[in-house]
Amino acid sequence: MHHPQAASRDGVAQTASDILARLRARAPRVHCITNAVAQNFTANVLLASGCVPSMTLSAEEIGSFVAGAQGLLVNLGTFDRERRQATGIAVETAAAYALPWVLDPVFVDRAPPRAAFARELIGRRPSVVRLNHSEFSALADTTPSREAAVGYARARRIVVGLSGETDLVTDGERVAAITNGHPLMAKVTAMGCAGSALVAACLAVESDAFRATATALVMIGVAGELAAEKAAGPGTFAAAIVDALFSLDESSLIARAKVS
Amino acid sequence: MHHPQAASRDGVAQTASDILARLRARAPRVHCITNAVAQNFTANVLLASGCVPSMTLSAEEIGSFVAGAQGLLVNLGTFDRERRQATGIAVETAAAYALPWVLDPVFVDRAPPRAAFARELIGRRPSVVRLNHSEFSALADTTPSREAAVGYARARRIVVGLSGETDLVTDGERVAAITNGHPLMAKVTAMGCAGSALVAACLAVESDAFRATATALVMIGVAGELAAEKAAGPGTFAAAIVDALFSLDESSLIARAKVS
Amino acid sequence: MHHPQAASRDGVAQTASDILARLRARAPRVHCITNAVAQNFTANVLLASGCVPSMTLSAEEIGSFVAGAQGLLVNLGTFDRERRQATGIAVETAAAYALPWVLDPVFVDRAPPRAAFARELIGRRPSVVRLNHSEFSALADTTPSREAAVGYARARRIVVGLSGETDLVTDGERVAAITNGHPLMAKVTAMGCAGSALVAACLAVESDAFRATATALVMIGVAGELAAEKAAGPGTFAAAIVDALFSLDESSLIARAKVS
Repeated sequence: MHHPQAASRDGVAQTASDILARLRARAPRVHCITNAVAQNFTANVLLASGCVPSMTLSAEEIGSFVAGAQGLLVNLGTFDRERRQATGIAVETAAAYALPWVLDPVFVDRAPPRAAFARELIGRRPSVVRLNHSEFSALADTTPSREAAVGYARARRIVVGLSGETDLVTDGERVAAITNGHPLMAKVTAMGCAGSALVAACLAVESDAFRATATALVMIGVAGELAAEKAAGPGTFAAAIVDALFSLDESSLIARAKVS
Repeated sequence: MHHPQAASRDGVAQTASDILARLRARAPRVHCITNAVAQNFTANVLLASGCVPSMTLSAEEIGSFVAGAQGLLVNLGTFDRERRQATGIAVETAAAYALPWVLDPVFVDRAPPRAAFARELIGRRPSVVRLNHSEFSALADTTPSREAAVGYARARRIVVGLSGETDLVTDGERVAAITNGHPLMAKVTAMGCAGSALVAACLAVESDAFRATATALVMIGVAGELAAEKAAGPGTFAAAIVDALFSLDESSLIARAKVS
Repeated sequence: MHHPQAASRDGVAQTASDILARLRARAPRVHCITNAVAQNFTANVLLASGCVPSMTLSAEEIGSFVAGAQGLLVNLGTFDRERRQATGIAVETAAAYALPWVLDPVFVDRAPPRAAFARELIGRRPSVVRLNHSEFSALADTTPSREAAVGYARARRIVVGLSGETDLVTDGERVAAITNGHPLMAKVTAMGCAGSALVAACLAVESDAFRATATALVMIGVAGELAAEKAAGPGTFAAAIVDALFSLDESSLIARAKVS
C-alpha cells in the first residue's frame, strides 16, 4: 500500500506566506464562471486578496477574458445553459493557453445531470477539484475519507481539496490537513465558492497545485478566524472576512496556519 | 356579513416561537426562484434562520431540487424566460410532492405581462401570496384594505400577506395585523423578497399557512428592530438584520411580537 | 484652439447640493441594465440616495419599466444576449420618451465584441458615457487625458465622465476635475457601476448632463471619504458607503466637494 506524505506545518505556512506576497505583487486576473448567488461576494474576496476578478459568461466574450486571465474558476452552482456553454469555451481556451483551472462541483449531490456534467469536466483536466463531503460522495461514488481523497486524486492525477471540519488537500502523493477556519463560515452563502476562487487565484501565481490549494484554504481559514473576532453574526462576519483578507499579512499566516 | 377573527397576540407570539425552534432543529431545504438582485441576501437570510437555501433555475435541474426541498418560493422580480420556465416545472413538482409554496409578485404593478403571469400562477394554488399595496392593487384590481385582503384570501382560498406600515396576514377567516419592523427595512433592496423566502421556510415546518406567514413576518420585523439598534444606516443594517436573525431566540420573539 | 472652461468649485458644490435635495424630494425611478455582480450593490446605493431602482432585463417587460422610469443606466459588465436585447429595447424606449441615459462600457478593453457594441451604442446618443482610463483608450482609440476627453465629448456631443485618481467630467465646453474619493473605492466590486447608476439618478432630476454627472461623482466621492472613517477594510467599507450616501446632507457636499 502506498503511503502519502503528510505536509509539514512550517513548510505549508512558509509557502502560503510566499504565495500571498506574490498575489499582492502580481495582481493576477482571475476569471470566474460562478453562480449568481456567489458573484458579488467572490469578486470582493478576490479584490481584497489583491486580484482582478472578471465574471463574464457570454459565449462571444468569455474566450477573450479567459485568454487574458492567469487563473480560471468553474463553479457549478445555479448551473444553466449559458454557464454550460461558457464552461466549454473557457476550458478549451484554458487548455490552449495552458491556464490552470479549478472545478467547484457545487450541489452535484442534488441533481444527477449536474453530477454527470461534473464527471465530464474532470475528464477535461482541471488542476484542482474543491468540494465538500456530500459532493465528494456523489462524484467519487464512495464515502469521503482521507484514503478515498488520496485515492481519487492519484487515480485522476488531480489535486483534491475536500472541505469539512478539517480541510484535506492531496495530490495523491502529499496530504495536508488544515484545521483553520470558524463555524460562521458555514453560515455565509458562497463562502466555499469564494474559497475556490481563491484557489484559482493562488494557482495563477504558483505552479504546484497542491501548494496553491493548501495556501488558499489556509488563507481563507485564517481570515475567518480573524473575522470572527470582529463579527456579531454571519452578516457582519461576511464583511469582516473581506476586511481580514485585505489586511492579511505574511506573518499572520505563518503564525496561525494549522496544518498537519 | 362575515367577520374574520382577529388573531390573539399571545397565540401568534407562542406559535412564532415554536416555529422558530422547529426551523433551528430541522434545517429545512428551501428552494428559491428569485430575482438576481435578491439571491445573495435571501440565501444569507435563510442560512441565518437555520435553513438550507438553493437557487438553481435551470430547467434540467430544478425538478430535482424542488423534489428534495421542504419549501418553495416563486418571486417574480427580474422575471425572464428562464425563470418562467423554471417556475412551470417547480410548481408542477411542488404539486406532485404536496410541497407548499409562496408567490411574491414583485412589481406586478409595473408591467402588464407580469401581472397576467402572476394571476395565472395564483390559479395554480400557492399556499401564500405575499405582496405590497401597489402589487395588491394591480393583482386584485381593488384598493388595498383589511376588507379587500380578507375578501381576496377567502375567494381564492389562499393566505394573503399584505405588507405595509402594518403587515396584514389573512386566510379569509383569521386576520393578524403585525406592526413589528423598522423604516430602514424599506431602504435595503430585497428585504421583502427575503421576507417571502422566510415565509416559505416557515411553511416547510408548519402546515397552517396562516400561522407560518404570521411567524415569518414577526420574525423579520423583530430582527429589523434589533438590527436598527446596531446600524448606522441601510448598509450596516443589511448586515445587522442577518446577525439578528441568526441570534433570534424564542423569548425575544415572545417579548417583542406586536400583533393585533 | 478651443479652451474649455474649468468649472468653479463653488458652482459645482452648490449644484450638487441642489440636485441631492431634488433626489430626496422626488425619489426618481431609475432602471438599470447592469451586470449580475453589480445588481444588489447598485440597488442599495440607489435606495440610499433616495431613488427607486428596478433591474428587469426581460424583453417583454423592460419597455414598460423604462417607460415608467425617469433615468436609465446601460452597463456592459457580464454582457450577454439577454442584456443586449434588453438594451436595444430600453434605448429605443428612452428615445421615444426623451429619457436621458448613461452608458458604462465596463471592460471594453477586454473583449473586442464588447467594444464594437459600445461604439454602436454611443451612436445612439446616451447623455453620458462614464468609464475608466483603460476603457477610454479602447473606445476612443487614444491615450486618456484632459484634452482627449474634451475632444471626444465635443466630437460626439456627449458628456464624458472619465474616472481615475482625478475624475474628469466634460461636455466639450466645460471641464470639472473632481478629486473626492478614497482608495478603498477601487477595492469594492461594482463601485464604479454604482457610481454610473448615480449619474443616471442625477440625470433624472437635472437636465444639464454635465452638472448631473459632476454631482454624482462628487456625491459618491464624498460618501467614500466619510465611509473610510468608519471602515476597517473593503468589506465594512462597502456597507459604510451605503450608510454615508443615506446620511449625506447638502452641507457636507458643499463643505467637502473638491473640484477644480
